[in-house]
Amino acid sequence: MVKKPAPDATRRSEKSRRAIYDAALALVGEVGYPKTTVEGIAARAGVGKQTIYRWWPSKAAVLLEAFFDLSTQAAQEAGQEPYVIPDTGDLAADLKAVLRITVDQLLDPRFEVPSRALAAEGVVNEPLGREFVTKLLEPQLQLYVDRLRSAQDDGAVRADVDPRIALELFVSPLAQRWLQRTGPISYDYTDTLVDYALHGIGPQTPRST
Amino acid sequence: MVKKPAPDATRRSEKSRRAIYDAALALVGEVGYPKTTVEGIAARAGVGKQTIYRWWPSKAAVLLEAFFDLSTQAAQEAGQEPYVIPDTGDLAADLKAVLRITVDQLLDPRFEVPSRALAAEGVVNEPLGREFVTKLLEPQLQLYVDRLRSAQDDGAVRADVDPRIALELFVSPLAQRWLQRTGPISYDYTDTLVDYALHGIGPQTPRST
Repeated sequence: MVKKPAPDATRRSEKSRRAIYDAALALVGEVGYPKTTVEGIAARAGVGKQTIYRWWPSKAAVLLEAFFDLSTQAAQEAGQEPYVIPDTGDLAADLKAVLRITVDQLLDPRFEVPSRALAAEGVVNEPLGREFVTKLLEPQLQLYVDRLRSAQDDGAVRADVDPRIALELFVSPLAQRWLQRTGPISYDYTDTLVDYALHGIGPQTPRST
Repeated sequence: MVKKPAPDATRRSEKSRRAIYDAALALVGEVGYPKTTVEGIAARAGVGKQTIYRWWPSKAAVLLEAFFDLSTQAAQEAGQEPYVIPDTGDLAADLKAVLRITVDQLLDPRFEVPSRALAAEGVVNEPLGREFVTKLLEPQLQLYVDRLRSAQDDGAVRADVDPRIALELFVSPLAQRWLQRTGPISYDYTDTLVDYALHGIGPQTPRST
């Protein structure tokens, strides 16, 4: 058990914690995940290695928290409550609004550089990839599941639709364009994805064939 | 200019070419793109380094052709003509058939291991990523564009839909599940994506609100 720190110690800890997050994100963006070490993060943050090991068991754990913190900050800066998708009753408008914020985040170099380094590692490093999906990506996707379930209650999404698959119709195209640079990313693009996903690309009235 | 080789030389060349493809794919899967070298490929293929440089300017060029060859082989083994999407007049059936072949390919270790290594490098190495998208991925995506355009002529896809965006509704979810391991991949899954993309997830008849 650790005894409760005095207020000064808490402030110092908070400052160290933020320095460690910043160092971890900067380092992974610069040298990639394999060459990022706890020693390197400690040196860059100006703290002892033991300070990091006191709080986190591994560099993966530090990075996980650093990314979580970064996403939370980005949402707050966008005037959005972190980890909430609005429910105004207008599903298309709500999805478009959240995806526009995601577009901004994906194009922000503070986010883009470390996120790419981590995503690249996750593609070839299965345990790391799975940990980050489970702890970081999937909880965000579950927010869409919740919003789509609420839309099913309102009749805006068909009851037989699986929300966990449906969300991929607009989330995954954006993810692939960003990850693999298969096309430009813009508000128009994500708005279009939402419209296609909700209405389909087929004819509006069922064909009689 | 190179003089036309004798038949024996052509046979020898073809054998060397295939050994080089195999070596390049095996090596990139084992050690990753940055540590794959022309020297390493040559040693593994049992050819001289100069043999490789006579045919290709760089390791990226060797790998590009090796992947192209691998995709062509996979299509042929599946009894499909490479780089064609069937047009039976039933858009849903045609898309589902092609995506099922892609599922098989993504789950085949011969394809999966080197493809992951390359995809991971493309995420952080922008010139390489762009080259592989332009030369390898985008030509495959254009086949879907062609098929969707033909569907627009038949009235199976609305005329105002952008086919290059529409294809992402079923291609990108599969790509993301594979790349980031965000969920299981199966025929059921890709069939569902096609149905959602064609019909939308919203109510079948336009709402009067």
